[in-house]
Amino acid sequence: MFKHILTPYDGSKNADRALAKAGELAALVAAPVTILTIYRHHSMLEASLSMVRPQEPGNIDEAMRAHATQTAQHGKEVLKRAGAQNVRAFVRSGRPARTIVDFALKHEIDLIVLGSRGLGASGDSYMLGSVSHKVTGLANIPVLVV
Amino acid sequence: MFKHILTPYDGSKNADRALAKAGELAALVAAPVTILTIYRHHSMLEASLSMVRPQEPGNIDEAMRAHATQTAQHGKEVLKRAGAQNVRAFVRSGRPARTIVDFALKHEIDLIVLGSRGLGASGDSYMLGSVSHKVTGLANIPVLVV
Repeated sequence: MFKHILTPYDGSKNADRALAKAGELAALVAAPVTILTIYRHHSMLEASLSMVRPQEPGNIDEAMRAHATQTAQHGKEVLKRAGAQNVRAFVRSGRPARTIVDFALKHEIDLIVLGSRGLGASGDSYMLGSVSHKVTGLANIPVLVV
Repeated sequence: MFKHILTPYDGSKNADRALAKAGELAALVAAPVTILTIYRHHSMLEASLSMVRPQEPGNIDEAMRAHATQTAQHGKEVLKRAGAQNVRAFVRSGRPARTIVDFALKHEIDLIVLGSRGLGASGDSYMLGSVSHKVTGLANIPVLVV
């Protein structure tokens, strides 16, 4: 049935629910689960917020990447504690929906499990557009919206 | 995991793929599958097409209902042939997304499996809006878009 499950994870409650469902499904079909946490580069954030921050861009990018890495690791630990055998965690930067779909294609994912809302870049709440809608529109593989 | 799977079915290729996936998942978790075919009442069609047809409305409604019933039965037979044990088929009239979500709530569905496009009222191709997007937005249960 499903051979490789991807669950984008931003640490939100919705993402937690998706993570749990991805873990259950993975156990059922004995498939590996890959967690993907996405963050945005400082420059993209600035553009989307139309504001300037005093810090050096490099440091902010590093801080966001570090936060995303922590988030992805947390997701991995949650799944492992729930009994998942084969879990990997990745961090990428970029626009969430497009990055998810590109990642899925590259890693031969055949099911994406994601939360119905949330799922902005890691740690941000400014993403009001629904990433799940965009992913279901862009992906040509099954998408489970939890 | 999933205890009752709903798959809206309009006979399109997308719906066929969703039907097959629903059948596979149902076998995996030993859950019943319910097929739902939706048609629109003549008056709603008229309103959406802004045209008048010469036939008597009642006959058209009956014809649409008959066609929807055939479609639902066809879906049921396909699933049964694929080995599904517990399949039921229903026909309802109304707006597709809202009707799907209301039906799911009433029948204690915990997973909706549907095609990524298509899924207009039975036999019609005038539905350009994406029902799958609307369903994922309206439903508060997992939705698998195939």
